[in-house]
Amino acid sequence: MLTTLSDRIATLTGMSDSSLLPVSSYAHRLAEAARLAADVGVDLLMVSPGPDLEYLIGSRAQTFERLTVLVVPSAVGAQPFVVVPQLELASLSESAAGALELPLHPWVDGADPYALALADAGANPVVAVSDSMPALHLVPIAQRIGTTPRLATAVLRELRMIKDATEIAALREAGAAIDRVHARMGEFLVPGRTEHEVADDIAAAIVAEGHTSAAFVIVGSGPHGADPHHEYSERVIGADDVVVIDIGGPVPTGYNSDSTRTYCFGEPPADVAAAIAVLERAQIAATAAVRPGVSAESVDAAARDLLAQAGLADAFIHRTGHGIGLSVHEEPYIVGGNDIALRPGMAFSIEPGIYFPGKWGARIEDIVIVTDDGCESVNKRPRGLTVLPAKS
Amino acid sequence: MLTTLSDRIATLTGMSDSSLLPVSSYAHRLAEAARLAADVGVDLLMVSPGPDLEYLIGSRAQTFERLTVLVVPSAVGAQPFVVVPQLELASLSESAAGALELPLHPWVDGADPYALALADAGANPVVAVSDSMPALHLVPIAQRIGTTPRLATAVLRELRMIKDATEIAALREAGAAIDRVHARMGEFLVPGRTEHEVADDIAAAIVAEGHTSAAFVIVGSGPHGADPHHEYSERVIGADDVVVIDIGGPVPTGYNSDSTRTYCFGEPPADVAAAIAVLERAQIAATAAVRPGVSAESVDAAARDLLAQAGLADAFIHRTGHGIGLSVHEEPYIVGGNDIALRPGMAFSIEPGIYFPGKWGARIEDIVIVTDDGCESVNKRPRGLTVLPAKS
Repeated sequence: MLTTLSDRIATLTGMSDSSLLPVSSYAHRLAEAARLAADVGVDLLMVSPGPDLEYLIGSRAQTFERLTVLVVPSAVGAQPFVVVPQLELASLSESAAGALELPLHPWVDGADPYALALADAGANPVVAVSDSMPALHLVPIAQRIGTTPRLATAVLRELRMIKDATEIAALREAGAAIDRVHARMGEFLVPGRTEHEVADDIAAAIVAEGHTSAAFVIVGSGPHGADPHHEYSERVIGADDVVVIDIGGPVPTGYNSDSTRTYCFGEPPADVAAAIAVLERAQIAATAAVRPGVSAESVDAAARDLLAQAGLADAFIHRTGHGIGLSVHEEPYIVGGNDIALRPGMAFSIEPGIYFPGKWGARIEDIVIVTDDGCESVNKRPRGLTVLPAKS
Repeated sequence: MLTTLSDRIATLTGMSDSSLLPVSSYAHRLAEAARLAADVGVDLLMVSPGPDLEYLIGSRAQTFERLTVLVVPSAVGAQPFVVVPQLELASLSESAAGALELPLHPWVDGADPYALALADAGANPVVAVSDSMPALHLVPIAQRIGTTPRLATAVLRELRMIKDATEIAALREAGAAIDRVHARMGEFLVPGRTEHEVADDIAAAIVAEGHTSAAFVIVGSGPHGADPHHEYSERVIGADDVVVIDIGGPVPTGYNSDSTRTYCFGEPPADVAAAIAVLERAQIAATAAVRPGVSAESVDAAARDLLAQAGLADAFIHRTGHGIGLSVHEEPYIVGGNDIALRPGMAFSIEPGIYFPGKWGARIEDIVIVTDDGCESVNKRPRGLTVLPAKS
């Protein structure tokens, strides 16, 4: 087989390399990227396969050991171009790179793609590379330019963090799709079934409700709910379990859904109901704290402080949220120490959780988009503990 | 959701982080890695999630923006350790890192994991990083050590290229599993069906025959067969099409299968049969050229020269093969310019192909393992054009 590990995602989800948005959107993004690069003294942006490449030219190329790189010079009038393995040329041509008639520089096995990428760079160019560029390619580039490249994040996040109308529409579509899956949870989540059985049904429903794939399915029942990164297991779900369901995936435009709800069967114990009621208030408080000008860390603090007031500070062991778009995780991160000021168009999760090792856990997660005076949640399901029938 | 894009593979394929081989295997690999690092003057190996991490400690951790890194000091008596997000600690503990009682240094959001990784490194350590380390982490490490790290490939490939008995057994198991799928191709590959319909059935069979997932499925019918990187499409397969089927995936130990056969329906045209007969001879010639001491490029040349003698030089547009193991693509690469001498235990594909744009293509691929006096193919299916019934 000629492709690479990372191609598996594309193969499994049937992703094509076709341009997903109007070509004018990509032309605008490329021009903005060049302008922002120039503003910070970067001569060349070098963008590897990954969300940045998809954002800039709509390509879902996934090459690993064969270099594919979009080169965006910041000089006025200089044209972006793509260095691409000959084998990937046809696929790459279907992206906006083809529609925009960007020069494509194919190379064959045995050739030096780094020389192609840096041919017009002049001496000692200031290069910034995308987060996802692997060491396999970054190190040879560093050797040729005589220094370690910068990260392009500072340039590209300014573009990628602020979603435009097309992207906001895509996130709303994804939110509605995953809400439909949570609305059907009673069909899948039944005591006596294993987490794995429930996860398989949820994965099928995620696709049936409009996603191109089930990117992730977490079914954390009972003590498994106390591990935020538990996926699913052969554990049989008990009638008295609290169950965390954290699910999502990309819709056809490539933008992702991500929503968590916590479930139980029949009336929950008073202490569980009380703790989850506090968690719901914390999620609401963090959402209410979102508006232009406030810092990301202040949104994290809004959830954390409310949980702390209820004596649950130690139960909340992760950040409050992460940006989302073409990546499931991207900037802005809603975490202590991140003083970035929120701006309209930013999209991120608000997902406080409480975890009691060996016992149970709960998490409530919505995706919100910053508006001019607050935020819009793309997830509309009731936030609190969802009580399913005690008997199926 | 709390995990990252790359976690999707793990989620989709149900990979666990459990140690897959005897703990002694991992202890041996870690000791050898440290010894080889010292030999080339490397003070610290820093290994990110990916095949190198799976090879060294059996962990399939897939964190992206949160740093997980195995640090292997080369100093005699120094112990390897893992810097891991608190959220991933439970999962990481299930790998050999837990069984070997390697120190685990968890960190929480907001902390500085790079300081943890380099705490005992002293001034200006010589660091080598794994191929898969993303720029997101490599750049901050470079800033702290004051220079661009080296690639650890040169160290780790010496280990990973030479498969031990356990790995060879795993590759044989994978080869037999994918052979069973090719043996059933007549059930799936029928004129009138779309490439996508056939690919879905093949993917199910790949799992049914013993793989944990269908990592890749290429169904290249007619003109699509002339694009080596075509996956599958909605094209309806015609009765006169030549069809390239390139499939594989991991078996439970994590080692991969990868085998390509070319199919037709009923008797093929004489020119097609003749060209594919030459391709078969080229694949056999390259396989026959494999033995300890010969160069990787000489194996590539064996296939290329035979095709050239038949006037098909321009139709063979990619390298002859790639190493395989825990990665679908790894060293050694069987390509012009690679003068590495083959050694017993090396495993790689031999997959010459011929491509006629707009018309048809063919490829024949087996995985071989270098023996003391030649090589063993783990794929046993007949190599030549496989003729399926003209009517279903």
